[in-house]
Amino acid sequence: MMEKIEVDQYSIWLGPAATSLGKVLESFPTARLFILTDDHTHICCLPLIESALKDRDYQVCQIRPGEPFKVITTAISIWQDMTSAGLDRHSMVINLGGGVIGDMGGFCAATYKRGIKFIQVPTTLLSQVDASIGGKLGIDFDGYKNHIGVFQSPLAVLIDPVFLDTLSDRELRSGYAEVIKHSLIADGGHWPVLTQIHDLRHADWHSIIRRSLEVKRKIVIADPYEKGIRKLLNFGHTLGHAIESHFLQSGMPLLHGEAIAAGMIYEARLSVRYGGLTTGQLINISNYIEILFGPPPQVELVDLLPVLRQDKKNKGVQISFSLLEDIGKSKWDVLLNESDIQF
Amino acid sequence: MMEKIEVDQYSIWLGPAATSLGKVLESFPTARLFILTDDHTHICCLPLIESALKDRDYQVCQIRPGEPFKVITTAISIWQDMTSAGLDRHSMVINLGGGVIGDMGGFCAATYKRGIKFIQVPTTLLSQVDASIGGKLGIDFDGYKNHIGVFQSPLAVLIDPVFLDTLSDRELRSGYAEVIKHSLIADGGHWPVLTQIHDLRHADWHSIIRRSLEVKRKIVIADPYEKGIRKLLNFGHTLGHAIESHFLQSGMPLLHGEAIAAGMIYEARLSVRYGGLTTGQLINISNYIEILFGPPPQVELVDLLPVLRQDKKNKGVQISFSLLEDIGKSKWDVLLNESDIQF
Repeated sequence: MMEKIEVDQYSIWLGPAATSLGKVLESFPTARLFILTDDHTHICCLPLIESALKDRDYQVCQIRPGEPFKVITTAISIWQDMTSAGLDRHSMVINLGGGVIGDMGGFCAATYKRGIKFIQVPTTLLSQVDASIGGKLGIDFDGYKNHIGVFQSPLAVLIDPVFLDTLSDRELRSGYAEVIKHSLIADGGHWPVLTQIHDLRHADWHSIIRRSLEVKRKIVIADPYEKGIRKLLNFGHTLGHAIESHFLQSGMPLLHGEAIAAGMIYEARLSVRYGGLTTGQLINISNYIEILFGPPPQVELVDLLPVLRQDKKNKGVQISFSLLEDIGKSKWDVLLNESDIQF
Repeated sequence: MMEKIEVDQYSIWLGPAATSLGKVLESFPTARLFILTDDHTHICCLPLIESALKDRDYQVCQIRPGEPFKVITTAISIWQDMTSAGLDRHSMVINLGGGVIGDMGGFCAATYKRGIKFIQVPTTLLSQVDASIGGKLGIDFDGYKNHIGVFQSPLAVLIDPVFLDTLSDRELRSGYAEVIKHSLIADGGHWPVLTQIHDLRHADWHSIIRRSLEVKRKIVIADPYEKGIRKLLNFGHTLGHAIESHFLQSGMPLLHGEAIAAGMIYEARLSVRYGGLTTGQLINISNYIEILFGPPPQVELVDLLPVLRQDKKNKGVQISFSLLEDIGKSKWDVLLNESDIQF
């Protein structure tokens, strides 16, 4: 089944990626293609789209996988490979991988010769429901996540649930944190459906992704540059990012979604005090997240402050949160002093 | 005298920079300021705007001057300084200097936390009439000029002819190449005025800049992303950039405008063959440029080809030129094979 979902200036294709890629490339018969992969997606995912690439002039660039490589030195090596490949303004970059590949490959494409076209082919659940949509691109810098980057829309996003078979259980669960988030902030009707799902490996991903995407799609169309409502998507992420950075620096890295799951539990607690969430709803949310992820890791506020203070959403010394008012309803720009943050 | 010229989403202020800066900053009373300077503008230009900065929270970042420092390593050090200075999304970068400062400081601001506000205060003639308007930002990379960058509009551009007193004769003349270009491509009426000017030091810069800016302003408003008519601004620059790169690599660097002056003479010759310029007009143009700049440096096409082949405007193997049809009239997308390029 192929569905085509329109976002502002581009389309999300949900269905077999070889088919959608073939369709998109039809309009650019002579564009030179540059495919960014990592060690994992090169082996597991590239073969699944190769039928769309036959008779095309393309070059594959392979980087090492994982967040530690989403840094300026890798971006420099990608720009160098783009240059060696002779990419011109009519060339096209295909980012085949998870959030690291999409964010960094998109950033490199959006800055190469002041911007060339790129297609996102997200291969993790996390990037399929979140990172690949909304045009946020960038790299980590000086220990801060996505510190250097731009907003730029891709030519298209191609989502194929078959790629989820290439993920470990832990990675699949990590991505599911964003599905939970989308329901909590803006789709209360999806929550009773989701909470029935305990075996992620055998879930109906096409329909889950379809519905979860709809939340993000509506929000980024309404506010592409995160001036207002788009900040809702940061629920769980203010503390979640800080938790992710803290455990990374401690040498016990969490996956992004694992940190966000913990961030959502802690920010749901803040939501009872500052958002209007009831204690019953908090328990409902925490229980489901803990069934899947286990109890959130213990962490002290003092360890999170250095990162919290660098958060892009802050205003002066106050930390900005997006909190829940209800399951499926949320508000942004809740400014808290450091002393107010107790979880 | 203060004039305010509207470009799309921002204003160009032509007049005393301390006054215009004060006016612009009034609307952002609490924004933290980050002023990018080089060794030269720190000493010669910063004092001229300091009266607008009193009672403000600002930090000065000073880099080494010149094109060789418009590279990723300098950009990284600027991003690090921005991070140390604790800049948030409400902060503002003031780029005080020539094209290197404006292009690189603008690029760093446009990518820091996915983009913060910046003000261009161009201090060279070149950047006052050209680089500071139109939102082209970036750095050189792997020997290619402006190879990595983005399009992004500044909050404002503040042009003050008093800064021209801080330039050497050679730098002033270099900037004048772009004034000549603007007249040749789109303002034939300015040409008889300009050709009367032989002593650049005592020219009426306010009115020259005003009229020259008007050409660029109209063009970038009509075509901000260089899909069409904006390519006219590349007259003299296809060969000029290649000449600039060639002499840089040979250890005998030319100033940008010196390379462009040579590029304009050579491309005016191509314009006779492929553009419709008359031989008499070619002589008129060459004579005036040579009076100011001397005869163009000797160079062989073969030395320019590596750079020409990387030109952002190319289509496949053909090199794209913007050529003159008349003095004050030009056309873009003249695609030539390498064998057609004889100057």
